[in-house]
Amino acid sequence: MHQTFDAALGINLLHANQEGADHNRAHFDEWGITCINIMSSPGAGKTVVLERTLAAITQDLSPSLKAAVIEGDMTTELDADRLRQYGVPVIAINTGRSCHLDSKMVAGGLHRLVHEFNPSEIDLVLVENVGNLVCPAEFEVGEHAKVALLSITEGEDKPLKYPVMFQEADCLLITKMDLAPYLEIDVDRIIANVRQMNPHATIIPLSAKSGEGFETWLSWLKAQVNLRKSQKPSTSAQTSHEGLI
Amino acid sequence: MHQTFDAALGINLLHANQEGADHNRAHFDEWGITCINIMSSPGAGKTVVLERTLAAITQDLSPSLKAAVIEGDMTTELDADRLRQYGVPVIAINTGRSCHLDSKMVAGGLHRLVHEFNPSEIDLVLVENVGNLVCPAEFEVGEHAKVALLSITEGEDKPLKYPVMFQEADCLLITKMDLAPYLEIDVDRIIANVRQMNPHATIIPLSAKSGEGFETWLSWLKAQVNLRKSQKPSTSAQTSHEGLI
Repeated sequence: MHQTFDAALGINLLHANQEGADHNRAHFDEWGITCINIMSSPGAGKTVVLERTLAAITQDLSPSLKAAVIEGDMTTELDADRLRQYGVPVIAINTGRSCHLDSKMVAGGLHRLVHEFNPSEIDLVLVENVGNLVCPAEFEVGEHAKVALLSITEGEDKPLKYPVMFQEADCLLITKMDLAPYLEIDVDRIIANVRQMNPHATIIPLSAKSGEGFETWLSWLKAQVNLRKSQKPSTSAQTSHEGLI
Repeated sequence: MHQTFDAALGINLLHANQEGADHNRAHFDEWGITCINIMSSPGAGKTVVLERTLAAITQDLSPSLKAAVIEGDMTTELDADRLRQYGVPVIAINTGRSCHLDSKMVAGGLHRLVHEFNPSEIDLVLVENVGNLVCPAEFEVGEHAKVALLSITEGEDKPLKYPVMFQEADCLLITKMDLAPYLEIDVDRIIANVRQMNPHATIIPLSAKSGEGFETWLSWLKAQVNLRKSQKPSTSAQTSHEGLI
């Protein structure tokens, strides 16, 4: 666990992070935006899943989702540049040596997002966290739901060995299903191990290469958005970002 | 980056960790033991590489390496149990919510190791860190060399996106080479990206499934051990663990 108390500042860091997360979430709610925090090990496929997700959303002739991305990486804008090609707003956050996004970093990203774009034209903010199966699970950023990815190349035992991430996830994407024929892997065992940690998460096996599972994943995303869109205030939220700190 | 200063205790945490690491290393040196810190993302293949490594070492009729393992995991002894089957000393450390081993945890493991086994009969301690491509790189545990693993399923860009681990590594194992035919991956690009971060690391592509690269990896390990064995004091180190704290 990270150091959780900063005696110099006299604050509990996780508590301060949680306050910031609640503040971010209040803004999202005010704008009728759904925020999804996407987390996994490095290389489990977060960016490629987002690429296929944005392609599906933006190629939809009657788009029902208007997405933006907050992209967290220690260094580089490599992933942000990949996602900008889909014509959606993408805000890049470099965390430096930090192993996770925190609510303060995301507040900064959100600030830039609503100054560069109109929040009333966004339904969905997808936050791609730093690749790390441990730390991001402990730091909320203001999301309404957490999505964890586990690629089948990582092995069946990971839900047991990295329990916090799997306990926290509302939705688990089991990625790289196209590689199943070449691996000695039992996907049912992965699912059983996830269920030991979390009986309620939605579990979706998918492949960004073959497209397997994407219909289910997009339906899950749309359901999350529709839930909050129905609560969206009818007045314009265009000016309300002034209060964002 | 983790919180690095604990004002309540009045200490710099990274500095305190470094002091503990130096203390551990002094014990390793006293015993003529080489300590290798093995790090990677979850599922990159640390445990299966260790299994094949221990199999090669223990099946050698004139074994030139006498290995022990300190096995770090947040929870469970699943990996430790896999490695115990090779008949070598294995000490399991559960880190709880911590995302990395630190020098204090490894001092505790070392304490148990030298009370249960004779350090003069050990040449090599392999420390398997918590699966995390970020945090373990910042916390030395007393190792003489750092080995990072990157599986080819994780993508070519990881050395650029997670620079600290690749800058710190003395040896990089590019794992799961047997999957290359099924992936759109350019291994030369991985190597070029590692070289941008670290011009000097030994880079070994390998596969625990096919055995590709293991001869080179075992030679690298033996060279590390021989370097320190030549400095091993001739007197018995059996009783010197009394001073270990």
